[in-house]
Amino acid sequence: MPNTKYVIGVDFGSDSVRVLVVNAETGEELESRTAHYKRWAEGLYSKPAFNQFRQHPLDYLEGLVECITSLSPEIRKKVVGIGIDTTGSTPGPVDRTGTPLSLLPEFRENPNAMFILWKDHTAVQEAFEINELSKTWGGVDYTKYEGGVYSSEWFWAKILHVLRMDEAVCRRAYSWVELCDWIPALLTGTANPKTIKRSRCAAGHKAMWHPEWGGLPSETFLVQLDPLLSGLRERLYEATYTSDKKTGELTKEWAERLGLEEGTAVAVGALDAHMGAVGGGIGENALVKIMGTSTCDMMVAPSKVIGDNLVQGICGQVDGSIIPGMIGFEAGQSAFGDVFAWFKNVLSWPLESIGEDEGLDSEVKSRIEGRILEKLTEEAAELDPNETTVLALDWLNGRRTPWADQELKGAVIGLTLGIDAPRIFRALVEATAFGSKATVEQFKDQGLVVQEVIAQGGIADKNPFVMQVTADVLNMPIKTVHSNQAVALGAAMFAAVASGVYANIHEAQDEMNSGYKRVYTPNPVNAARYEELYKKYLTVGHKLSPILRKL
Amino acid sequence: MPNTKYVIGVDFGSDSVRVLVVNAETGEELESRTAHYKRWAEGLYSKPAFNQFRQHPLDYLEGLVECITSLSPEIRKKVVGIGIDTTGSTPGPVDRTGTPLSLLPEFRENPNAMFILWKDHTAVQEAFEINELSKTWGGVDYTKYEGGVYSSEWFWAKILHVLRMDEAVCRRAYSWVELCDWIPALLTGTANPKTIKRSRCAAGHKAMWHPEWGGLPSETFLVQLDPLLSGLRERLYEATYTSDKKTGELTKEWAERLGLEEGTAVAVGALDAHMGAVGGGIGENALVKIMGTSTCDMMVAPSKVIGDNLVQGICGQVDGSIIPGMIGFEAGQSAFGDVFAWFKNVLSWPLESIGEDEGLDSEVKSRIEGRILEKLTEEAAELDPNETTVLALDWLNGRRTPWADQELKGAVIGLTLGIDAPRIFRALVEATAFGSKATVEQFKDQGLVVQEVIAQGGIADKNPFVMQVTADVLNMPIKTVHSNQAVALGAAMFAAVASGVYANIHEAQDEMNSGYKRVYTPNPVNAARYEELYKKYLTVGHKLSPILRKL
Repeated sequence: MPNTKYVIGVDFGSDSVRVLVVNAETGEELESRTAHYKRWAEGLYSKPAFNQFRQHPLDYLEGLVECITSLSPEIRKKVVGIGIDTTGSTPGPVDRTGTPLSLLPEFRENPNAMFILWKDHTAVQEAFEINELSKTWGGVDYTKYEGGVYSSEWFWAKILHVLRMDEAVCRRAYSWVELCDWIPALLTGTANPKTIKRSRCAAGHKAMWHPEWGGLPSETFLVQLDPLLSGLRERLYEATYTSDKKTGELTKEWAERLGLEEGTAVAVGALDAHMGAVGGGIGENALVKIMGTSTCDMMVAPSKVIGDNLVQGICGQVDGSIIPGMIGFEAGQSAFGDVFAWFKNVLSWPLESIGEDEGLDSEVKSRIEGRILEKLTEEAAELDPNETTVLALDWLNGRRTPWADQELKGAVIGLTLGIDAPRIFRALVEATAFGSKATVEQFKDQGLVVQEVIAQGGIADKNPFVMQVTADVLNMPIKTVHSNQAVALGAAMFAAVASGVYANIHEAQDEMNSGYKRVYTPNPVNAARYEELYKKYLTVGHKLSPILRKL
Repeated sequence: MPNTKYVIGVDFGSDSVRVLVVNAETGEELESRTAHYKRWAEGLYSKPAFNQFRQHPLDYLEGLVECITSLSPEIRKKVVGIGIDTTGSTPGPVDRTGTPLSLLPEFRENPNAMFILWKDHTAVQEAFEINELSKTWGGVDYTKYEGGVYSSEWFWAKILHVLRMDEAVCRRAYSWVELCDWIPALLTGTANPKTIKRSRCAAGHKAMWHPEWGGLPSETFLVQLDPLLSGLRERLYEATYTSDKKTGELTKEWAERLGLEEGTAVAVGALDAHMGAVGGGIGENALVKIMGTSTCDMMVAPSKVIGDNLVQGICGQVDGSIIPGMIGFEAGQSAFGDVFAWFKNVLSWPLESIGEDEGLDSEVKSRIEGRILEKLTEEAAELDPNETTVLALDWLNGRRTPWADQELKGAVIGLTLGIDAPRIFRALVEATAFGSKATVEQFKDQGLVVQEVIAQGGIADKNPFVMQVTADVLNMPIKTVHSNQAVALGAAMFAAVASGVYANIHEAQDEMNSGYKRVYTPNPVNAARYEELYKKYLTVGHKLSPILRKL
C-alpha cells in the first residue's frame, strides 16, 4: 500500500513523552514509544517541599528524538502529520528568537528560565492578587470563563512570580510561551514570539484569553496588577488557533534529526486532557472522564447553542478548546486516585515508621505495601453497600468542580468500632464517585445533556471495582476507551486533519477511534441505594463546608 | 505493733480478681494479689460473636481463695475487715438457699444459670421492651434516675432474657442476685434471698430501685412487661444498703478456707467504678474519671442539696451509691481507649491481611503491632495542634453522656492529602478529650461544681500525652491517683468503716488515701486553641448527629 498515510501523536506528560504512530485511514495503532525525562527523573531544578516543579526543555527534546528515531524506518517514511499535546499551563520565558532562556548558556541551570510545570504552586500569592484585582478593579472580570477563580497553576500567575523572583530572567525574557505552543513552533521553525501560533485551548483556559475583550486582559489591568508586566501584552498574542490547523511544516533540520520527511505537517498544539477527550471519542452529549490521580471531565456543545452563555460552577469554557467550532468545557476532581493513594499511605505508616526498628525485611515491606490497594479493592468489592455505615467526602485536595473551592477538605463519618480498613476504603471509593456525580449534575443543571460517559486513564484501565461503583453511583453505563494511549491518539487525529487526510476532526474521530473495551452497566439495586447515599453526601458536604474551610 | 489493723479490698474485675491488703490506720498498701478466672480465660460459656458473656461462680471463688491464701500469714492475722466490689450489672439466678444455680449439679454447665457479665448484650430486645413500656404504660417512668434509657447490660433486661430463653432455669430460679450482693453474703453465711443485704449502688443504678416508688418497679409494671416476671418482685428486695455497713461476719468455714479470723467484718458490696471513685479520693466538687477502654465519670453531691432533683443528660443518680449520705452521679464515655485501639486495628490491617502471604515473620508482625500506639503517641505529641486540620468525633461506640445516644457514630473530618496517621491519632485523642469536656460541662450546666479532676485507670497510669491533652482541653489540672489499685483501695476503705476502724467513709478517705503521683497542668496556649476547637467539635457533632443516627 504505497499510499498508506501514517500520523504521529506526541503526548508530553508530567514524567515522560509518549509517541504513538497510527494509520490515519484505519486508526490502527502501529507502534508506540515512551521516553522518561532524564533531568526530571534525577530531581534536578525542582523543590517538592516548596511545590516548585521545573522542567528543562532538553528533557523534552531528547525524549522526543529518542522516541521517534527508534520507530522503524519504514513506518517513519509514511508519516504525513504530527500532532502534539502537552501538560499545561506549563509556560516558559523565551528571547526575541523564541528560544527558551534555559537553552541559552547563561541560563542553562536556572530553574526560573525553564518551563514551569502545571503542578508548580510557587505562585499562590500572585494568583491571589489576580483574583483580587479581577473582582475589584472595576473593569471586566477576566476570570469569568475560567470558572471565576484564577489558579496558581496558570500562565499569568507563574509569569508574574518569576518576573518578581528573578531579575536576570525578567530582564531577558522577551515573551513567554506555553509548552504546547513552543514544541510545534520549534519543529516548524515558526518560534518567533510575535508570530508563533498560540493554542486556543491553553490561551482560553489558562491565560484569560477571550474574544469578548479582544484577547488577553488589557494592558491597564496587567500594569495595575504589577508594573513588571508593562509592555508584555503586545509581545504576546491576539490570535489563537485550534489544533485542526497546521502550525507549519517540519524544517529540514528537524526532519533529519527525527528521520521524517521535510515538510511534514505539524498541527497546532493543545493541552493533554483536551486532546485526550478527542481521542476518547468526545462528542455532543458525551462526557469524557480522564481518571487518574485526579480527573478531568470534558464536554463539548455547539457554539451556536451555547454562545458565550456562562456555564457556572465548572473550571472553564473555551470555544474550540476541544473540538473546533464547539465550546469545550473542562471540569474535574482535584483528587481521585490520589485519595486511594493517600489511604494506602496512612495504612503503610506502621511499616514505614516502625518496620525497620523491628527488623522488617525491606523487600517484604515493599511487597506488602505494593499489595495494599489491590487487597483493599478485593475486600471492599465483597462488601454489601448496605452493611456498612461509613460515608466520606472526597475533597482531600480541595474541590475543583462543581464550584471550585480549594479550602474544602475531606471527611470520613459514620465510624464504629467495627469499621475496618476495607470499609473505609469502600467509602472513599464511593465518595470519589459521588464527586463525579456532582459534576455530572452540575453540567445537567446548566443545560447540558449528558447521555453517555466515556472513561480513560489509569483508573479506568486498571480498577474495575472503582469503575463499577462509579457506574452505579452515576446510574449510567460507562464505556472505557480501548486504546491505553488515548491522549496521543487524540493528537494523532489532529495530525490527520492538519495534514489534510480528513476535512475535520469529526471525520478523523469516526475513522480513527479505537473503540471501547468494556461497558460498566449500573447494578439497579446498588444504584437505588446510592441515590439515597448521594443525598446524604450532599447534605454532609453542605453542612460541613463552612467548618472545613476554617480547619 | 500488736494492734495494727489491716483491711482487705477485693476487686472482682472482668477478667481477674485483685486483692489488696492495706494498713487501715496509715493507708499503706502492704500486699496485692491477682488471679485470672480460669474457665473464663478458656472461653467457656461465652459466645463473643453473639455478645454472650457468662462467668462461672467457681471462677470467682477459686480466684478469691488463691489470692487470699497466698498472702503472708502474719498479714492475714491482722485483717479486721473485708470490702468487696464487682463489675455490674452482673446478675445471676439463685435457688431458695441463695445458691447460684450453676453451683447445683444439674446446672453446672448451663451458661444461663451463671452470672451474666456486665458487657453481655443478649438482652437487647428486652431492654427495648422495658424502655417502651416505661414511657407508655401510664405510670411512673422507672428509668428516670438511670438517665432515661434502660440498657441491655442491666439487671431486669438480663433476667427477663434468661427466663424467656431457658425454661429449666426459669422454673428453678427462686430469686436473682447481683454479684456484688452474693460474694459478701456467701462469705458471711447471709445468702438467704429474702434477707441478703442488697447493694444500694447496684439496685439504684441498674435495677430501677428508688424510694420514690417504694423500691423496685411495681408488680403491675413487671407483669405487664412479661407474665414470666410474676411474683419475682416479692422474692427480691425492698431495703438496700450502703457499703459503710456490714453485710455480716466471716463464717467459720470461710475463715478456715481463707486463713482469716472468724467474725471478720465484711462490708456490703458495690460496683467497681463507684468504689474506685472513693479510692481515688472523690468528694464534693471533685470529678473522678476512671479512664480505660471506656470512662466512668463519677461525682457526688450532698443529698440535702440535690434531693431528688433530676440531673439531666447523665447515666444515673443514686443516693449513697458512692458515698453514703450523698447522691452519687455516674456518667462516662462509651469508648475512650477503645477509640485508640480501633485506630491501631485499622493500621494493623495490612500486616494482618497481607503479611502472611508475603512472608512476614509473625514475631516481627507482633512487635510492629505492639508498638503502634506507642509510636503514634510519640509522633502525635510532637505535633503543634495549630499545624493540623483534622477534627474528630469520639462516638465510635455511641455516646453514653452527655445525653445517651447509642445511634451516634464517630467521624474524622478536615482530611487533606498531607494528613498522616499521627495527625489522625492526635485528632482522635483530642476528640476523646472533647467528649470528656462535654460531660464536665453537662455536670456544670446541671448545677454541680467541678473544682478538680482526679484520674485513675490504665490510660491515666500509662499515657501522659493523652492526659496532657485532656488537661489542656478541660483547661483544668488533672491529678492522677498514686495507687494503681485504687478500686481495691476503695473497697478496703469501706472495709475499714464496716469493721469500725473509722466512723465514716470520709475519715477512711482522709487517712487511707494513696495521694497523687502526678498533676497535669494545662498549657494555656493549647487550652485557648482547644477552647476554639471544642466549639467546632460541638458544632460538627450537632450538625452531623441527625445523619450519623441514620447511617
